[in-house]
Amino acid sequence: MALVVMKFGGSSVEDADKIKFVARKIIAKKKAGNKIIVVVSAPGDTTDDLLEMADKITSNPLAREMDMLLATGEIISISLLAMAIDSMGEKVISMTGPQAGITADAGYMRARIKKINPKKIKDQLAKNSIVVVAGFQALNPKGDITTLGRGGSDLTAVALVAALEADFCEIYSDVEGVYTTDPRVVKDAKKIDCISYDEMLEMAGSGAQVLQPRSVEVAKKFGVEIHSRSTFSENQGTIITSEEKIRRKKMESLLVSGITFDKNQVKFTIIDLPDVPGVAAKIFGRLAKIGVNVDMIIQSAAVDKKNDISFTVSKQDIKKTQMELDKITIEFKVANVVCDEHVAKVSVVGIGMKSNVGVAAQMFEILYKKGINIEMISTSEIKISCIVDELDMVKAVKELHKSFGLSKKKYETL
Amino acid sequence: MALVVMKFGGSSVEDADKIKFVARKIIAKKKAGNKIIVVVSAPGDTTDDLLEMADKITSNPLAREMDMLLATGEIISISLLAMAIDSMGEKVISMTGPQAGITADAGYMRARIKKINPKKIKDQLAKNSIVVVAGFQALNPKGDITTLGRGGSDLTAVALVAALEADFCEIYSDVEGVYTTDPRVVKDAKKIDCISYDEMLEMAGSGAQVLQPRSVEVAKKFGVEIHSRSTFSENQGTIITSEEKIRRKKMESLLVSGITFDKNQVKFTIIDLPDVPGVAAKIFGRLAKIGVNVDMIIQSAAVDKKNDISFTVSKQDIKKTQMELDKITIEFKVANVVCDEHVAKVSVVGIGMKSNVGVAAQMFEILYKKGINIEMISTSEIKISCIVDELDMVKAVKELHKSFGLSKKKYETL
Repeated sequence: MALVVMKFGGSSVEDADKIKFVARKIIAKKKAGNKIIVVVSAPGDTTDDLLEMADKITSNPLAREMDMLLATGEIISISLLAMAIDSMGEKVISMTGPQAGITADAGYMRARIKKINPKKIKDQLAKNSIVVVAGFQALNPKGDITTLGRGGSDLTAVALVAALEADFCEIYSDVEGVYTTDPRVVKDAKKIDCISYDEMLEMAGSGAQVLQPRSVEVAKKFGVEIHSRSTFSENQGTIITSEEKIRRKKMESLLVSGITFDKNQVKFTIIDLPDVPGVAAKIFGRLAKIGVNVDMIIQSAAVDKKNDISFTVSKQDIKKTQMELDKITIEFKVANVVCDEHVAKVSVVGIGMKSNVGVAAQMFEILYKKGINIEMISTSEIKISCIVDELDMVKAVKELHKSFGLSKKKYETL
Repeated sequence: MALVVMKFGGSSVEDADKIKFVARKIIAKKKAGNKIIVVVSAPGDTTDDLLEMADKITSNPLAREMDMLLATGEIISISLLAMAIDSMGEKVISMTGPQAGITADAGYMRARIKKINPKKIKDQLAKNSIVVVAGFQALNPKGDITTLGRGGSDLTAVALVAALEADFCEIYSDVEGVYTTDPRVVKDAKKIDCISYDEMLEMAGSGAQVLQPRSVEVAKKFGVEIHSRSTFSENQGTIITSEEKIRRKKMESLLVSGITFDKNQVKFTIIDLPDVPGVAAKIFGRLAKIGVNVDMIIQSAAVDKKNDISFTVSKQDIKKTQMELDKITIEFKVANVVCDEHVAKVSVVGIGMKSNVGVAAQMFEILYKKGINIEMISTSEIKISCIVDELDMVKAVKELHKSFGLSKKKYETL
């Protein structure tokens, strides 16, 4: 008898009909001979509604009270889902995160799970009950309810699999799995059968949001194989697993697994910065201090003891960055700062790159042949990202997707 | 420095503006030199909305899951109110019922408070924090969240006053206090300054719903003086206290404190029931078994070894009662059962009756003089209730209110 953890996202429990549908799905899995732990998110827009309520009270809410407020969303889901399962004749019990024995560190709003005491869940599984656990929440050392950050229910599911040594981790959402790229942009994007933790992390960092990145990190740490699949179909989804297992399964892995893109980028260029040692460290140190997360950085070669530095930040950080750069330009007597909001990041991701050095060159050539100018480049072991004009983004994604052989239809490769 | 428990009902925290208003009121009381514990209900219609959600899932929800669901309403209130208080610069912490140390018996949906461990609240009061506690909820011996029944936040407030030996118990709502009768029916109804626990209980049982009856029982048991008052005015409300204290305050207590009425009544009459010992016990025993709460009973004197029995039940129990009576008429070979839905109960309540035997006679005479027919009568030590035609109800209430000298204007008494 296998132990399965099934996690359902908010859109899967947003109304009574969907809750009943999910209940039937859970019961079917139980009747197939499994023990079941369910993790649920808050229904539909509940979390956003609660955030809006808080925003009407104050723009600067206490983090502890915010967590107290937000945790109610998942409690609504678990009780309604448990009622639905019970009404269909199966034994069931709901548990809040704290009741399920999930403890976290002292942080709020992005608390980290420290330990899971699975006794209460095990007792209920032994009584043949389906256990429905509220995702996204935990108990901190003070006895407060805390939350695990956006998408934290994925983390709850993965952590429960690790703590209970469950056999399967199934993350259900309204998409069929992880795609080679966003199917809304490239119609013949394919569902990926298998992807490694690291690829998944690189894809999440580059804009694809199927799973919460922290949940993937924890899955990697504890070797939890995740099956990301759709609530509303029986199709196989995407398995997120170790590189080793993927290599064992496939004789030959693809060069590139997926293409991602991110419009939420702004490029700043500081022109004629004095070429003095430590100046870059000072600038980026100060941006880090005010909470600006700098993504890509390019420094041009020095000419006349001056050089240019370009870097990208998220769009929500434009104002903060601009204000800090205004001060910096005065201090360092810099002539000019240019801000370009019309850029986008396009990335190719794949563990195949590790053993194949030509991928970067291939990417640049594809873009060059289509007349797409590359403004900045950054690379990791399994990812290459380019900043391009946002008007070129969709074309770049489509061409890369086709040329790296990811489309359903066969195209000629370069 | 006094310790004050302030309880706010759902209509006092139904939107952001009201929550801020309540926060200011709480802070003003703190700044006047008090330590403050606040108890809140769920905002506005939240509890009804949650009930409706559950109803869409199943008509027969698990009680444990219902309590899990309903408890979220008050958690939303405490977190938002704590955010508001914090944003105004006062130290504050919210606590769910379980966090506040409130434990209950094993029942669900109408759980009874067993014990309060006030350590956590005391610690926070010592740190000069305002403590905001979720009303209506407790922790049961299994570690489940349970609820205390409709109006249970009043009970939470009274129990906290008793456990913490607080100096004041202030129950805020959208009415100014307890009135001599419903001001919507009798325009010159007066706010009552002082009323005894027993009078309050009789008035609640007769239709006046300012405080949850169980909270009044607990207040009586522990000698907690309740001040029922309006959130939205600074006027003195009504003090609910012991008869002894009232007698000490007033040299001469009024004969009658209030007039109540209740349209939610149905009268059944079983005609020609065999006059055999134990037959009434059997009938009412069976009604009790199916959960029908019988209020008033009249048995006529036996004629030809047969007699009639009339009794009243709440309107929501009509169907259940009728179905049971159908069986009973066959078993006891009774000719006929008559159901009259067009009745109402009118009651006069007052501790003054204890020392004055003429009140019942006076009540009957007032009704007789106005041509109002009395169909049934029941009396307790401090209450007399009459069943009348529902068309006569308002007239009866107005006449009794005037004739017992409760109106603001002076009328001639009988």
